[in-house]
This record gives sequence, structure tokens and C-alpha cells, in this order.
Amino acid sequence: MTRPVFSHVALIGLGLIAGSMARAMRERGLATRITGFDQNAEHRRIAAEIDLCEVSETLADAVTGADLVVLAVPVGAMGQVAADMAPYLSSGALVTDVGSVKATVIESVSPHIPEGVTFIAGHPLAGTEQSGPRAGFGTLFDNRWWILTPTEGAPEMLSRLSELVRGMGANVEIMDAAHHDLVLAMTSHVPHLVAYTVVGVADHLRRVTHGEVIKYSAAGFRDFTRIAASDPTMWRDVFLHNKEATLDILGRFTEELFVLQRAIRMGDGPHLHDYFTRTRAIRRSIIEAGQDTDVPDFGRMAAQPPKKDQ
Amino acid sequence: MTRPVFSHVALIGLGLIAGSMARAMRERGLATRITGFDQNAEHRRIAAEIDLCEVSETLADAVTGADLVVLAVPVGAMGQVAADMAPYLSSGALVTDVGSVKATVIESVSPHIPEGVTFIAGHPLAGTEQSGPRAGFGTLFDNRWWILTPTEGAPEMLSRLSELVRGMGANVEIMDAAHHDLVLAMTSHVPHLVAYTVVGVADHLRRVTHGEVIKYSAAGFRDFTRIAASDPTMWRDVFLHNKEATLDILGRFTEELFVLQRAIRMGDGPHLHDYFTRTRAIRRSIIEAGQDTDVPDFGRMAAQPPKKDQ
Repeated sequence: MTRPVFSHVALIGLGLIAGSMARAMRERGLATRITGFDQNAEHRRIAAEIDLCEVSETLADAVTGADLVVLAVPVGAMGQVAADMAPYLSSGALVTDVGSVKATVIESVSPHIPEGVTFIAGHPLAGTEQSGPRAGFGTLFDNRWWILTPTEGAPEMLSRLSELVRGMGANVEIMDAAHHDLVLAMTSHVPHLVAYTVVGVADHLRRVTHGEVIKYSAAGFRDFTRIAASDPTMWRDVFLHNKEATLDILGRFTEELFVLQRAIRMGDGPHLHDYFTRTRAIRRSIIEAGQDTDVPDFGRMAAQPPKKDQ
Repeated sequence: MTRPVFSHVALIGLGLIAGSMARAMRERGLATRITGFDQNAEHRRIAAEIDLCEVSETLADAVTGADLVVLAVPVGAMGQVAADMAPYLSSGALVTDVGSVKATVIESVSPHIPEGVTFIAGHPLAGTEQSGPRAGFGTLFDNRWWILTPTEGAPEMLSRLSELVRGMGANVEIMDAAHHDLVLAMTSHVPHLVAYTVVGVADHLRRVTHGEVIKYSAAGFRDFTRIAASDPTMWRDVFLHNKEATLDILGRFTEELFVLQRAIRMGDGPHLHDYFTRTRAIRRSIIEAGQDTDVPDFGRMAAQPPKKDQ
């Protein structure tokens, strides 16, 4: 058993990430005490019911006495939550967050951090399409990356936070906030937006019925629906707060799509074949890097054998 | 054990689909004899080595005496293969195909079908991102749809082909070829093109390194790379041969994407939130229809636990 890294961790926002952190920290003995608060009363009730952590009825109660406070709310709510909890933070405490965007979070949270409290922004690259207090699990961060984007020199705090992150199974990566936002626009935000759009088009298409889209989804579409099933509030905030990088990558995406569209229209087979050959190599690298399984179809069949009688 | 539905099935093109058919037919006793041919000598060698079926050295040898011939070659090669094998087809034989596009395949194959031979085009909605003679497995079609698009009245042949398809575990659906092509453009062809494009953009982006894209792919991007790892020749042909429907759906997609892009630029949160909420419901329907697993992340972790030391 690991020794506790923090004596009192307060989790603000009890969704998939906080729930997974609570489980990972408990299972691995990383915190002596874990309190939690969610502004949604139903989430508090569920969290208490499944004994996720000590559930507080107010934000103030949750953070009082904590030596680590984790902001795990949608990116657009971070600033307000930071302002609300500021008076109750203990001197010497560390505040971090788990938002998918870093530059605007730093911008909105930092002004509210009191003298004597340190803020180090962070982002665990882990998650599933599910959300809410029941969605978490203790192995979510195993072998995933947890990016930290510190803005002030606080080497001791950074090293303690890194210790906690590694204790939960993740690998720490230090990065500049703006670069984080660009990298994530490419690997996460634009893929999500594109998936939402494909699913949205299917929803609107009159000549192909809703039933047909569902029925024949196994042909590729269903992979997009998984991504497009993620939490709407979280993703709305991601796009509004990583506007610049998202629009930059989106611009490149449509440019590239138009070139392929033109190749289809003109019947340019060699162009399409070359393009599709190059993209194959990237998949291989991801599997070699241990970031995905090489089992066909993600091993769906092993996860749950298809039902024969429907 | 089922009784054989055909006495001699010839598989032309020994890739993922033909390989899975060979296994499914053998395991379930659906054919007395299975011959196979692939114009790629290496594929023939592998198929023989793994004893997929009786591997013939020529197309003529493979189809001679067959009462069912299955064209399992890229869509763009169907017409030529049909022309080449025509002189060797037995009277009373049935020819089918497994191409992802139906209207142009019917157009290119039908003229070569001799008097006394029936052609019923078909498309199993099943597959993985892997290809080649080793990629197949006997349960690939379990609970999947197999669309048939008959163009002539041959009820007895249609019923025998349906019996074979159901014997391999799939559900038969009869559809008009043009409607098939539109439905598949939506559920498969455009999702594939979009996935190829997202992966292509990542490959070009200079400010985000190749290594970073790989490293942080778990944030959503890796789902796209799976789709974009599919066979380049097959997909080139799909787009060239389902040009009209693909361009139609692509047009709707870019239109829709521009609306979301504008909402991001204008900071229109309610629009984004509404959109992301609607797309969530589709995922639920797909899981309820038994077309995907509801295990988070497709159950990747069950399929292959992440490696800790990389």
C-alpha cells in the first residue's frame, strides 16, 4: 500500500473523472480523507448512496481543511466555482482542475486563487462516453496521460501532484497551456465535433429513416455515436473555451475534406488510394504505443457477444 | 448440424469477407465443397497454408462446377472478374457479390452473366479494420445484416441464398440497390471518409508532432484511426462507385459542420448544447437494437488490459 500523498482531497463536481479519482485514491490509499460536492442534489444523493466519498452539502464544507482541491466541473463553470470557494481555502492548499481546455481555465481560475494557495492546472486524457457519479472506475487512468500545465514555480507542489497522478496509474506530462489546447483540438475536440456532426446529419436525413440508420449502424457509424454520446454540457464548454484552436484545426479539416471530395467527383483513384494508405500507418503506431487494443473492432465481441434474438 | 445449402461454393477474392464466409460455412456445414481463388499469389499461398478452402490456381478452375459463385473483390474489379469467369459458369448456377456499393456493381456485372445463370447482388454489413486471408473469422456475420438487392424475379434462388446467409448467422434484408447506396453512404461511406480526413489532418499538422498525436490519441482520435485503417483499395473503389450518394451526404455534412462552426465562433452555447443532446439519443437506440455493446469504450479494457510499462 502506498502512503497517502494528501491528507484531505476535496472533489468539486462528482462526475466520471472525480468518481474515478475517488475510487483510484481509495483503492490505492492515496488520500486520508476524501470529501466531495456537486451542485446537482441528485448527484450528491447518488454519490452518497454508492459511498463514493464523504459528500458535503455545501462547497464551503467540502473544501474546508483540504490540502488538495480538484475542480472537476465543466470548463465554463471553473471560474465561478473558484470564486465561490476562495474564502474557504486553507493556506498552503493546492488547487488543480481536470478540464479539457487549459488556457481559458487558467485565465478564469487564477485571479481567484488567494495568497498562499497554489494553482496547477491539469487534464487527465481519460474518459468514456458515460457521465455522472456512477460512471467512474478506479482503473480509468491506468497507462493514460495526465497533462499538467503549471504557470508558477512551485516545484514542491508540482512534485506532490505528480506523485498523486502516478499513484492513480497515469503518466505525468508537463506542457504549455496553449500547446495543450492545440494538441487536444486535434486529438479530441475536432474528432468529437465531427462525430457529433455525422450523427446529426443522420438524424436529419429524410430519405434514410431513423430506423435504417440504427439498424445498419455497424457499418462504421456506430463508432461515431459512441463519441457523440458524451456529456453535452462538458462538450459545449470545451468548444466555447477552446475556440481558436478548434476553429484552426476545423479549417484544416474542411480544406482536406474538400480535396478528397474533389478527388471523388473527378474520379481520381490514385489520390484516394495514396491518402488511405498513409492513414493506415498511424493506426499501427497507436497500437505500438500501447494507446489502443489491436483486437478487431476494439474487441467488442469479447466485451459483449452479440445477441442472436432481438 | 445444418444440411448443406450449396454443393460447391466458389469464393473469388480471399479477403476478410470470403475468409469469414469459408469459416462460417465450414463450421456450420453449409457447403459440401468450397473452392477459392485470389489474383494475388501471396493471398492464395496464405489461404492454402491456413487451409481456408480448396485454393485454385486459376479463376476458371475455382468456378467450374460451382452452384454458387461469390464475388468478394473490390467493387471496381467486379465487372472484369465477371467477364473473365463467364465462360466457365455452370448452367443453373447462382452468382452473388459482397461489395459495399450495389447500383454500379449490378450495372457492371449483369451484362456478363450468361443465359441460365442468376445474379443476385448482396452486401454483408460486417467487417473489421483488418484485411487479407488471415483476417476472417466464422462468427463475423452473427447478428449482422446482409442486404440483398435482387433485380430479376428468381424467388427460388433468392430463397436459397437467404438460407445460406441465415445459416452463417446474419439477418437477410431485401432492398432496392439505389436506396442501399444512399443508406450506406450515410452509415458507412461518409463516416469512413471523415475518419480518413481527420487522420490525414493529424498527419499534416506541423505544430503538433506525429509523436504527440499518437501519444494523446486516447482522447477520441484513436476511434477514427481504427476506421481509417481499413483496406485502401476497397475504400477507393467504394467512393468512386458510390460517387453520387457520397457527395450528397458529404454536402449535408459540411453544411451542418459549418453551422456548428459558426455557433462556436459566435459563442452560441444553447445551439451547441441542444445539438449534442439530440445526438446522444441515437447511441441509446443503437445499443437497444443490439448493434453495439454498451460497455464503456467498447469494452477495450476487457479486450486487452492496458500495458503499464511501455
